[in-house]
Amino acid sequence: MLQRCLVTGAAGFIGSTLVDRLLEEGVSVVGFDDFSTGQPAFLEAARRDPRFRLVEGDARDTAAVAAALDGCETVFHLAAHADVRSGLQDPRADLEQNTLATSSVLEAMRARGVSRIAFTSTASVYGEAAQVPTPEDAPFPVQTSLYGASKLAAEGLLCAYAEGFSFQAWILRLCSALGERYSHGHVFDFYRRLKADPARIEVMGDGRQRKSYVHVQDCVEALLTAVRQAPGRPTILNVGGEGTCTVDESLGWICEELGLTPQRFYAGGARGWVGDSPLIWLDTGRLQALGWRPRVDVRESVRRTVRYLRANEWLLERRRPCA
Amino acid sequence: MLQRCLVTGAAGFIGSTLVDRLLEEGVSVVGFDDFSTGQPAFLEAARRDPRFRLVEGDARDTAAVAAALDGCETVFHLAAHADVRSGLQDPRADLEQNTLATSSVLEAMRARGVSRIAFTSTASVYGEAAQVPTPEDAPFPVQTSLYGASKLAAEGLLCAYAEGFSFQAWILRLCSALGERYSHGHVFDFYRRLKADPARIEVMGDGRQRKSYVHVQDCVEALLTAVRQAPGRPTILNVGGEGTCTVDESLGWICEELGLTPQRFYAGGARGWVGDSPLIWLDTGRLQALGWRPRVDVRESVRRTVRYLRANEWLLERRRPCA
Repeated sequence: MLQRCLVTGAAGFIGSTLVDRLLEEGVSVVGFDDFSTGQPAFLEAARRDPRFRLVEGDARDTAAVAAALDGCETVFHLAAHADVRSGLQDPRADLEQNTLATSSVLEAMRARGVSRIAFTSTASVYGEAAQVPTPEDAPFPVQTSLYGASKLAAEGLLCAYAEGFSFQAWILRLCSALGERYSHGHVFDFYRRLKADPARIEVMGDGRQRKSYVHVQDCVEALLTAVRQAPGRPTILNVGGEGTCTVDESLGWICEELGLTPQRFYAGGARGWVGDSPLIWLDTGRLQALGWRPRVDVRESVRRTVRYLRANEWLLERRRPCA
Repeated sequence: MLQRCLVTGAAGFIGSTLVDRLLEEGVSVVGFDDFSTGQPAFLEAARRDPRFRLVEGDARDTAAVAAALDGCETVFHLAAHADVRSGLQDPRADLEQNTLATSSVLEAMRARGVSRIAFTSTASVYGEAAQVPTPEDAPFPVQTSLYGASKLAAEGLLCAYAEGFSFQAWILRLCSALGERYSHGHVFDFYRRLKADPARIEVMGDGRQRKSYVHVQDCVEALLTAVRQAPGRPTILNVGGEGTCTVDESLGWICEELGLTPQRFYAGGARGWVGDSPLIWLDTGRLQALGWRPRVDVRESVRRTVRYLRANEWLLERRRPCA
């Protein structure tokens, strides 16, 4: 089924992990990235593989995507403005890099007769979900973030192309991912700040925000399971861990791993930032019915993420935390 | 509350009706339109009113919208690529004129410190609804048209601005509107084709597609009710008639009004076009709880639309039907 794939955002956290996995399985991969946040180092192994080709480009450039699609039958569209927290600082960024980039990829596919696309959407499209654990057909949510809105807009485009142009479209609504090559998010921020001051740590919100996380390998497995097992006419699937943890619990595991006991200070309020959801927990029954199971639990995911950052402190310099 | 409003799409079917109504109520209005589909004739009365100012411009031009906002406290954003059927012919049109134009209007508002916006969304965001009559919190739908997807994307932007920038946002999900100044849609197409050949008429689909319609005056009343009665943090409201009619029934009323008995030919299939929903019927309980009631029923709406077209055949020449 998968013979030659285009992966956008190929140098990203999830993208590069997917690239490595596809290559391991003998699939040829064209990696596409603008390296605005992607890391060349993440593709070091891939670049030694003759079945891998790297194209540097912006996903909004339809002609560049169309050229990169040569010989591909499936697209994994992962390129994104991937930080839910920073949308209000630049309201065009999510729209440009999530919605418009997706439109561009779809138009490039249509121009080249490629009609299979898997897309990494987000649990943020549920806003503050009325139903938890949240199934894919939960009550029609109200958007609370530009990030969620821009991803939902991209989902809508995929679905309309599925209906109108007979595309196969797989939409995966992901919880926050953790694991090796992780390079932004709460573990990153805590790690960075504890390194600067191991004696005290500030926590956004009241620390009781409760969320699911998914290990990056489970996330990649979910993408492959979707494309291989579901019809995509379109298919919408939640991806998340079995359980949840609070920010406080996660911070505890981070400190444990680092051997630190900082004093904790809380900014207060139920939300970590404007547009944050205090409770994210997805019902993954639909994906599990296809045979997928999360293999790495949330505690282990957090600890492995910390160990990865410890061994890769160069990332702290490369990626700025969000303000 | 309403003192000076910007109305985008002011020269359109619903927009110009809203402009006239606002002026009647003593509200000052800046009308904004690019006249790509709007009709100067619809603003003839408004232009004689000293409280009306017309600005010709494209809603995607943020600076032009910002300039037009001078002195306004509320925006009615009605400018749109308003035809659900033609999206597949030019997949960028809905995205540009619905999603990006809305982003532009919101950014212009933010730049000028204007934070109240009412927006005409569509019943098409429900795709093929799992629940009928469809309430605003129906199961999270799957998009079936680029039009619906582009309007849902715009809704998401409004909601994210409400959350992130404390905007007041009123989102009205409209059924197809009928009435005076109607200038595209099934009545328009039937009228035009019956004029060319009164003896026979082709019907898209099987004629049994069942939909709600709303009279344009009821639609304008819904907009004003929303802005005046609901908090907009954000507020999402369905707008539609009490009952439904089939395409066949509507055609019957059109023929009755015209005194014609054409032979009917059916294209077949449950849908009139790719992405069409065979059943659109909205639960308007939320809007009715604010005191709104539809005054013109669907049969009367269709008949008044035909009478309007009969008296304004110049519109048949100005507006091309959709292919």
